Amino acid sequence: MVQLRAWSLVFMLSVAACGKGEPAVPRLHLMPLPAEIAPEAGKLPIDASFRVSLAGYAEPRLERAARRFLRRLAAQTGIALPAEIAKEKASFVIRCERAGEPVQTPLEDESYLLEIRPRAAELRATTPVGALRGLETFLQLVSADREGFGAPALVIRDRPRYPWRGLLIDACRHWQPPEVIKRNLDGMAAVKLNVLHWHLTEDQGFRIESTRFPRLHGLGSDGNFYTAEEAREILEYARDRGIRVVPEFDMPGHTGSWFVGHPELASAPGPYSIERKFGINDHCMDPSREELYPFLDGFIGEMAALFPDPYLHVGGDEVNGRAWNSNPRIQAFKRGRGMKSNHDLQAYFNARLLAIVRKHGKKMIGWDEILHPELDKTSVIQSWRGQDSLSRAVREGYSGILSFGYYLDLARPASSHYLVDPLDKEAAALAPHEAARILGGEACMWSEFVTTDNIDSRIWPRAAAVAERLWSPREARDVPDMYRRLEPLARQLGWLGLTHRTGPRRMLERLAGGGPVEPLEVLTGALEPVKDYKRAERNYTSLSSMNRLVDATQPESDVARRFAESVDALLAGGPAASGAREAVQRRLEAWRDLDAALRPRLAESFLLAEAEPLVRAVSALGESGLRALEAIEAGKKLPASWRTGQNATFESAARPNAELLIMVVPAVRRLADAASAAAGTGR
Amino acid sequence: MVQLRAWSLVFMLSVAACGKGEPAVPRLHLMPLPAEIAPEAGKLPIDASFRVSLAGYAEPRLERAARRFLRRLAAQTGIALPAEIAKEKASFVIRCERAGEPVQTPLEDESYLLEIRPRAAELRATTPVGALRGLETFLQLVSADREGFGAPALVIRDRPRYPWRGLLIDACRHWQPPEVIKRNLDGMAAVKLNVLHWHLTEDQGFRIESTRFPRLHGLGSDGNFYTAEEAREILEYARDRGIRVVPEFDMPGHTGSWFVGHPELASAPGPYSIERKFGINDHCMDPSREELYPFLDGFIGEMAALFPDPYLHVGGDEVNGRAWNSNPRIQAFKRGRGMKSNHDLQAYFNARLLAIVRKHGKKMIGWDEILHPELDKTSVIQSWRGQDSLSRAVREGYSGILSFGYYLDLARPASSHYLVDPLDKEAAALAPHEAARILGGEACMWSEFVTTDNIDSRIWPRAAAVAERLWSPREARDVPDMYRRLEPLARQLGWLGLTHRTGPRRMLERLAGGGPVEPLEVLTGALEPVKDYKRAERNYTSLSSMNRLVDATQPESDVARRFAESVDALLAGGPAASGAREAVQRRLEAWRDLDAALRPRLAESFLLAEAEPLVRAVSALGESGLRALEAIEAGKKLPASWRTGQNATFESAARPNAELLIMVVPAVRRLADAASAAAGTGR
Repeated sequence: MVQLRAWSLVFMLSVAACGKGEPAVPRLHLMPLPAEIAPEAGKLPIDASFRVSLAGYAEPRLERAARRFLRRLAAQTGIALPAEIAKEKASFVIRCERAGEPVQTPLEDESYLLEIRPRAAELRATTPVGALRGLETFLQLVSADREGFGAPALVIRDRPRYPWRGLLIDACRHWQPPEVIKRNLDGMAAVKLNVLHWHLTEDQGFRIESTRFPRLHGLGSDGNFYTAEEAREILEYARDRGIRVVPEFDMPGHTGSWFVGHPELASAPGPYSIERKFGINDHCMDPSREELYPFLDGFIGEMAALFPDPYLHVGGDEVNGRAWNSNPRIQAFKRGRGMKSNHDLQAYFNARLLAIVRKHGKKMIGWDEILHPELDKTSVIQSWRGQDSLSRAVREGYSGILSFGYYLDLARPASSHYLVDPLDKEAAALAPHEAARILGGEACMWSEFVTTDNIDSRIWPRAAAVAERLWSPREARDVPDMYRRLEPLARQLGWLGLTHRTGPRRMLERLAGGGPVEPLEVLTGALEPVKDYKRAERNYTSLSSMNRLVDATQPESDVARRFAESVDALLAGGPAASGAREAVQRRLEAWRDLDAALRPRLAESFLLAEAEPLVRAVSALGESGLRALEAIEAGKKLPASWRTGQNATFESAARPNAELLIMVVPAVRRLADAASAAAGTGR
Repeated sequence: MVQLRAWSLVFMLSVAACGKGEPAVPRLHLMPLPAEIAPEAGKLPIDASFRVSLAGYAEPRLERAARRFLRRLAAQTGIALPAEIAKEKASFVIRCERAGEPVQTPLEDESYLLEIRPRAAELRATTPVGALRGLETFLQLVSADREGFGAPALVIRDRPRYPWRGLLIDACRHWQPPEVIKRNLDGMAAVKLNVLHWHLTEDQGFRIESTRFPRLHGLGSDGNFYTAEEAREILEYARDRGIRVVPEFDMPGHTGSWFVGHPELASAPGPYSIERKFGINDHCMDPSREELYPFLDGFIGEMAALFPDPYLHVGGDEVNGRAWNSNPRIQAFKRGRGMKSNHDLQAYFNARLLAIVRKHGKKMIGWDEILHPELDKTSVIQSWRGQDSLSRAVREGYSGILSFGYYLDLARPASSHYLVDPLDKEAAALAPHEAARILGGEACMWSEFVTTDNIDSRIWPRAAAVAERLWSPREARDVPDMYRRLEPLARQLGWLGLTHRTGPRRMLERLAGGGPVEPLEVLTGALEPVKDYKRAERNYTSLSSMNRLVDATQPESDVARRFAESVDALLAGGPAASGAREAVQRRLEAWRDLDAALRPRLAESFLLAEAEPLVRAVSALGESGLRALEAIEAGKKLPASWRTGQNATFESAARPNAELLIMVVPAVRRLADAASAAAGTGR
C-alpha cells in the first residue's frame, strides 16, 4: 500500500483512469475522503448471496452494527438480504482486535483497513468504533453497473485527522424531540462525526429532566423536555454509532429558563417566565450567592451520573453583565474580592464551577469566554471567535476545538465551511506540540430559525463538508469535487430517514395550499435565505410561526450553483457548451414562466403574498437571460442600450425580499454582459 | 339543518357560489364526503391563540386525540400551537356524551356534528369514536387565505353509510414491520376507515408470536414476526384512532409456514420449509386428524385473548384440494363420513373451527369459500368474488362485506375502485332487510409485489376512494370531483408520515445511481405497472429484489390522467384551451427529450437497461404529439400519410415493456387524429 498525497487521491477519486494494465478507477463518492486509498482491478458483486460474518473480537454493539449494515445495504440496493450475521466465514468479514473504551473518549482508536477484492472483502479495525467507520465507507462504495450491484476492489487505510468531530444541536430555542436527535445521529455516523454536542439549557427552554430539581424542566420547558429515560435511550443510540454525547448546561448567562422555577439563583429578583425573545438577554446567575454552588453541585452531580462522557460543557458565552451591574450586592461582592471586571467575576464563578465539575469526575469545556488566567489547564476551549482566539488558548496550554466558520445557522454555502481549517490564520504559526492541542471542531446548529420541519435541511448535507474537513487530510480542498460527492451523500442521508429534502418539500406543499407545488419549487430553487445574522434583526420569538417561504428554502441553492456553472461553460465554449446551453435555456424559461404560473395565486394566501417581488424579479431575470441567450446564439450583439436597460432588473433582483436572496443574478448578468456590445458596462 | 341530496352536496363542495345574501361556499377538499353539509358565512380564524377544550364525557383516549389533533394542526399550519388541552372553554370545544364500547364493534356510534362559526367551533358526538371522525373532518377544512389560516363556517352532520370499512394488509408475502402498520393506521383514520384486517399467516410467513406454539413463528418467519408486545402496541394505537383490528389466520390452505415447525398438522408428510413461491400452493391442513383440533383450540385461544375484536378471520380461501386428494387416509375419512367433495371436507373443518372460535368468545369471518349450507348464520362472509356471491350470502342470512373491486394490488385507478358499490349488480335487487346484512367492505393490499419501500404508494391515496364509497352517501359518484379532492388528501397523508410519494422517489434515486432523478420521474410519470394478475405470471418469489422501475412506478399516473384532460380541453377549444395547450406542449417536450437525457445512462446500470424500449417509445410519442400540436396550432392539417406513419409509434408504445404500460398513448393518438386530414384512420 502506498500512501497517496491528498491531491493525487482526489484526482484518482474524480477521474476514471483506464490505462493499459492499470486497474480502472471507478468514480467514487466517498465523503469524507479517506486518508489512503489504493484501487485494484474488478469488483465484489453484491447480490442475494451477500453475507457478513464477524471474526476476532465481537460484542453486541458490533453485532447490532453488522445487522444495521445489512438492513441498510438491503434498503440501498432493494435486494432481499437477511439481516442475520453468518455463522461461517462470509463474503464480507469484519475483524476487530479488541473492545473499545468502556466510555468513548477522544483517545478512541477509530482507524480501519478495508480490503475489497472480487471474491471477498475484509474490514479490519482495532476496536468496534473503527469498524463502524469502515462500514459507513463500505456502504458509500456500493453502486450498480451493467452487471449488478457491487463494490469496487480497493484497499482503504483510513484514520481521522482530528479526534473531536462534532455537531452541536440546540434543542432549546426550538424544541427538537428525540426522533430528530436520533435521525441526526444516523446522519452524523454516516459522515464519521463522533460528538453530539447537545445544547440542553437556554433562556428559551430547559430541556432535560432533573429528578433532583424538577421545577427546572417542569416550569422551564412548556412540557417539552427529554426525560432521563429518553436521554439514556439517545445515549445508547449514539454509543451504538460510535458517537460521544457532550451535554451543555450554559452558565451563568443564557439561564432564563432555570429561573422560572428557581428565581433564587438569579442576579435580578424576578419573577421569571420562559423567555421567548432571542439574542443576548440579561438573565444571569448570581455568582456572589453561596447557595448557588450547592445547587449546582446537586444538579451537575445528577447530570454527571446521567451522561457518561468525560466532558461536561458549561457554556459560559455571552454574559452581558447588565444583571450584575444593576445589583448592588453583586457590585459589593466584586469590590470586596478586588475583582476588576465582570470577566473576573465570571472567572471566579468558573473556578467554583470547575471544582464541582471535577468533583463529579468530569473535565470542563466551555466557549472562548471562559478563558481566563485562573482557568485550569485541563479545560477545553470551544472557539466561536476563530483560529486566533483558538491559538491563544492552545498556546496557553489548553486544548481547543473550532466552531468559528462552522455555524450552519448562518445559511452559508458548504464551500465556505469546507475551506475553514482549524490551522488557518494565526493557527498556521503554531508549533506542532501546540497544534496538537487542537482536538478538532464542531459544526453548530443553533435553532432560532429551525423547527422539526426544516432543521435537517439546515444541517444536511452541509455538515458533511465540516465532517470532511475534520476527518480527511488537510490537503483535501477541491471544492467542485466536494460538491460532486455531496449530492450522492445527500441521497444516502435521505435513505437514513433524514428529512433535509422531504421536509422543505412538505413546507412548500403547505404554502401551495390546494395548488401545484412545482412553481414554488422552481422559485425557491433560485433563492437562498438571507445570510449571517440578518434574520435576527427582526423581532422573531420562539413562538413565531416558521411557515414562510424563507423557512422552506434550502440554505444553499444547488440550482443556482449549477446554473452558474452552466453559464460559465456556455460562455467558455468548447465541448460542454451545447449541453450547458440547453440547461441554461430550460432554467431561464422556467423562471420566465413563474410570473404567469404564480402571480394569480400569491393573492390567494397570506403565506405567499410576500413572494410577489421575488416572483416578479425572477421572471424578469428569465426574460433578460433568454434575450441574451438568443443574441449569443445568433452571434449578434445586443445594443449597449439594451444592456443598460437591464440594470434596473439586476438591481431590483439583487435586493433581499421576504428575507430571501435571489442567487442567480450574477450568472444572468454575465450572460447579459456577453450578449451586449457594451460588455461590462453594467455595475 | 337541511338534509342535502348528495348530488347537490357534491355541487356545493365543488363550485364557489357567491349569490346575493347567500354565504360564499369555499371549495372544500373533504374526503370522504360527509352525509350532510350546510355552509354559512365567514370563517373561524386559526392562529397562535387557537385552543381546544373538552366538555361532557372525557377519557384519556379522547384527551390523547385532542392533543394529537393540536400537534397535527400545528404541523399542517406551521403555527406554534401548544399541544395542551385548555382548561377553560376554548375556541374549539369537543363535547362527547358518553363512553364508546369497551371493545369497538360494528355497532359503535360514529356519528358527529361539527359546527364551525366565525367565533368558535363545536364538535358534538355520542362517543369518542364519533369525535375522532369529526376531528379528521376539521383538519381537512383548514386552509390559508388572504387573512390567514382558518376553517370555513358551516355545519356538518355526518355518519357512515356502512359500519365496516376496512383495509387488509398482508404482512406475510412481504414482511411489514410495526412502523408500516402504524403509519397506515394513521392514514386509515384520516379517511375514516375503521377496520384493519391484519393478514398474519400465509405460506410465505407466520408473522405473529405464539407463546404457546413458539415453533410457529420461530421457524415460520425468518425472524420477521410481530411479538405479542408489538401486537398489543398496535392494537392500542388502532383503538386510539377508532380502528378495530381483525386478525386473519388463514386455514386450512395458505398454511405452509405453519408446517415448518408443525408438519404434523399437514395433509402431506413434509418436511416443510418456508414457501417462497407465490400463488395457490398445495399446502393444506389435514382436517381428518383429530390432533389438529386441540392444537387449533390452543392457538386460537391464545390469539382470542391477544386480539380483543369480536371477530376472528379464518381465511378459508383457495384450497386446491391436491394435498387432500393425494392422501389416502384423508380420502378414506371423506368416504367414511359420506362427504361428496373437498368442499364438504372444508365445511366439516369449518364447523369444527367455528366451535373453537365460538368457545373463545369470537364470531367467525371468512372468504366466500367458507359458505356452505352447514355454516352457522352468525358468520360473516368476505367476498372477493363479487356482489353476486355477496348477495347469495346475505340472502341466506349471513352478514357480508365486499372486497371484490377493492384489490389495491391490481394497480387499477382510483376511479375503478370508487365506482364499485356493494349494492351493484345482483345486490341491487336485495330486499332492504337483506341489504342491511351487508356491513360494508374492505380494500385489500396483498403484498406479493410490495415491500416497505412502496407499500404506501400502492395503498395511498387510492384506498381513500374505497373509504369514501363505504362512508359517504351512495349518490357520491362524481369521478372528476373525487380526483380533485384526492390530490390535497394525498398531501395531507404525507404530513401524517405516509411514504406513498417519498418511497417511490427514493426508489428512483436508487435507480438513478449517481445521476439526476428528474428524467426518471418524467418517464415513470407517463407509466403504470401492468394490471391485474399480469405480474403474477412471472416467477417472482418472496426473495426477488423489488428494485425495478415497475416497483418505483405509481399504480396510477396522475400525469397521464391530467395530460388526457388537457388534450381534451385543447381539442374542445373554449376558454381553457390556451392553458391546456401550454401544459400539453410542456409535457410533450419533456417526453421528447427523454431519449437524449436517459438513453446513455441506461447502458450504465443493469437496473435501468430494461427501460430502453420505454424511453424510446415515450420519446417518439413526444415527437409525434409535438408535430400534431404544431399543425393544430397552425390550422394546417397534416397529410393522411403522416397519420398512418404514426401507427407504428402508437402500436409499439401500446405494448407492455418491463411490466410497465405507457398510459399516454390514447391522448397522443387523439392529438394526432385531430391534426391530420385523415382523422380516425388510425386503429
